[in-house]
Amino acid sequence: MVQVAVMGHGVVGSGVVEVLENHRDSIAKRAKEEINIKYILDIRDFPDSPYANKFTKSFDDILNDQEVKVVAEVMGGVNPAYDFTKRCLLAGKSVVTSNKELVATKGAELLAIAKDNNVNYLFEASVGGGIPIIRPMSQCLAANDVVEIAGILNGTTNFILTKMIKDHMSFEDALKMAQELGYAERNPAADVEGHDACRKIAILASLAYGKHIYPELVHTQGITKITLEDVAYAASWGGVIKLIGQVKRLEDGKLDISVEPMLIDSSSQLAGVDDVFNGILVKGDATGDVVFYGKGAGKLPTASAVVADIIDCVKHLKARKYLYWADGDASLVKPYEETEYPVYIRLESDDKTKASEKVLELFPGAKVIARTNAPENEIAFTTGSISVSESDKAIAELEKNGISVKSKIRISDL
Amino acid sequence: MVQVAVMGHGVVGSGVVEVLENHRDSIAKRAKEEINIKYILDIRDFPDSPYANKFTKSFDDILNDQEVKVVAEVMGGVNPAYDFTKRCLLAGKSVVTSNKELVATKGAELLAIAKDNNVNYLFEASVGGGIPIIRPMSQCLAANDVVEIAGILNGTTNFILTKMIKDHMSFEDALKMAQELGYAERNPAADVEGHDACRKIAILASLAYGKHIYPELVHTQGITKITLEDVAYAASWGGVIKLIGQVKRLEDGKLDISVEPMLIDSSSQLAGVDDVFNGILVKGDATGDVVFYGKGAGKLPTASAVVADIIDCVKHLKARKYLYWADGDASLVKPYEETEYPVYIRLESDDKTKASEKVLELFPGAKVIARTNAPENEIAFTTGSISVSESDKAIAELEKNGISVKSKIRISDL
Repeated sequence: MVQVAVMGHGVVGSGVVEVLENHRDSIAKRAKEEINIKYILDIRDFPDSPYANKFTKSFDDILNDQEVKVVAEVMGGVNPAYDFTKRCLLAGKSVVTSNKELVATKGAELLAIAKDNNVNYLFEASVGGGIPIIRPMSQCLAANDVVEIAGILNGTTNFILTKMIKDHMSFEDALKMAQELGYAERNPAADVEGHDACRKIAILASLAYGKHIYPELVHTQGITKITLEDVAYAASWGGVIKLIGQVKRLEDGKLDISVEPMLIDSSSQLAGVDDVFNGILVKGDATGDVVFYGKGAGKLPTASAVVADIIDCVKHLKARKYLYWADGDASLVKPYEETEYPVYIRLESDDKTKASEKVLELFPGAKVIARTNAPENEIAFTTGSISVSESDKAIAELEKNGISVKSKIRISDL
Repeated sequence: MVQVAVMGHGVVGSGVVEVLENHRDSIAKRAKEEINIKYILDIRDFPDSPYANKFTKSFDDILNDQEVKVVAEVMGGVNPAYDFTKRCLLAGKSVVTSNKELVATKGAELLAIAKDNNVNYLFEASVGGGIPIIRPMSQCLAANDVVEIAGILNGTTNFILTKMIKDHMSFEDALKMAQELGYAERNPAADVEGHDACRKIAILASLAYGKHIYPELVHTQGITKITLEDVAYAASWGGVIKLIGQVKRLEDGKLDISVEPMLIDSSSQLAGVDDVFNGILVKGDATGDVVFYGKGAGKLPTASAVVADIIDCVKHLKARKYLYWADGDASLVKPYEETEYPVYIRLESDDKTKASEKVLELFPGAKVIARTNAPENEIAFTTGSISVSESDKAIAELEKNGISVKSKIRISDL
């Protein structure tokens, strides 16, 4: 019998307790040990819970109990999760988590502490909810060099974009609907501004390339400025707009990593990933393209991923799983302004002839795209590959000529 | 330094050597040990190979060398792979394989021998080529009950069906093209008759339900009888025909398991899996639907999965991975004739009025579907859920009335 503790009794935490209890027998069989929840840590009271006798408000109860070998940290946020996790690892307890913010900001340090103390720090649930991705990437793809990762990593924004694309709802209406359905928080910034996706691609990139890529090194842009006009142009171009978290290694060894809305071709494997689903494409040099697809969030999917990690820790109480990356710094990442890719641009001008001339002068090879019912003064076009700084300069030049640039969106090569 | 042997130097075997050599450093880092190929077993000569000095024709060289801790069996076929694998496991060597035929027919026995000898028998490469599926299913989904598995498990047949659906090629022409492109063997029976997919769903079912489901217990039907008429009706019904390997647990605890062509709805997550790609949908009670997608075959994808297993064995030389199922028998599986599902039926009759009446009499609630340019004497319809024996009886009755039944295809609930 192995004793575990669950820190946090919110959505995921209560799901972890539920899964551990409801699958007690099959889990014991797989872990080759019975697993018992000894403590549940929460500052709130749950007098009516069937597990009321397990609750504690004191982290020290868990820390000081030598019997507790594995701790699930499902509190979210950096504080006090960071401090609690560190002290558990230092005390020789393995920790599993769904806390993407903590892994993305403190992963290298916590992994090093886990290594030094011969325990495990696992975080399958931090990316993709119930979709297995961390473990397949670190194990099954062990014999590959990861060439590129691209993913739809946030279900909320994907739901909103799907509503905009399929039902022509405005961003505001689709966000409201997502909130009503419980897919989006009342304060939706972490989702719609791309921060959640940023943490996830930072974790995947760190794992794939072995060095910590901190979230602040990832150019991050949300979907709040995407309009139905852009969605319509994407359709006539032959694709859809998705919020993509992407990382690839450039020829100079640096990483091109970003989270931003992108136009992706309809034939791309991610184009059909709709609603609250996540899809993650991993290109290996040997495996080719492998895609993982499923619901990226939700109480039970995420909880089951946490429990799978608990089982793995119980099976490896005296061995370490290979899940590790070293510290990293800004030198790993190509400055965003220097990255190059084609873009879609939409603008408004009362003198369309002059505007078109200016566009062709500044973006040689630009191709105009059309949409039905476009206002008279609208022009949209796609460009060839161009660096961010160059395209920004050209856009400033357009603006100087009285041309109002409404949108600029990256075109993906997926 | 850990010594390994590779048995078989065909497509996959030479790929394994290539991946181990080309990724030597990164593999050593992940395995925390250098991995060295000491022997390559093949009855043929490879005098020009850069690894010529490693070749042997004697299995005993490998068996009797105490230094060899891990053996990759990539010979294919049951004999002599079965005998070699057994003797390696009994000698305390871990074995990894891409040999789906051997795993599907002898898995329970070999897993038991591995367990008794405290070594590992791993077979990630046996299903889905480079797509991680065995390990995610056994580990990441550990905290789930698997409700259902459904997959496009054979790339060759999927390529052929895609050509029939998208380019209106006949089965024969599409098969010829697949052979010319090297996707299909000169003797394509194992693919087009469904045997390959059968072995794979048998392996996945055994893993998910913990008891060996032998291939002969799986109703298996290939795609050789699918016609362009059926493809056209599937399209007007709103879907596509795919060769699906499927298993689900019925309410009485028995398994509904089969490999057969099915009509699947266009909105299904497997409908868009085209060409030589595989897609595997795993429904867990907690995770919901998770889909794994990628190239299901090919030298390097499959080889990299084998190498990932070698790495895992090297990391677990003194520990066992939990990958196991007990022996099983026919009582686990619902007899195919008793399984129930809706079907699509296409028939020909010179007296369409009489035929339609007869159809409605025998299949209450049948819904006629149309296609453009249908011959005068053709009728196609879909039915409600009906047992196989009932629908076969009804079809015999139609035939007795001079109505010629051309096709009957399962309609999937995917």
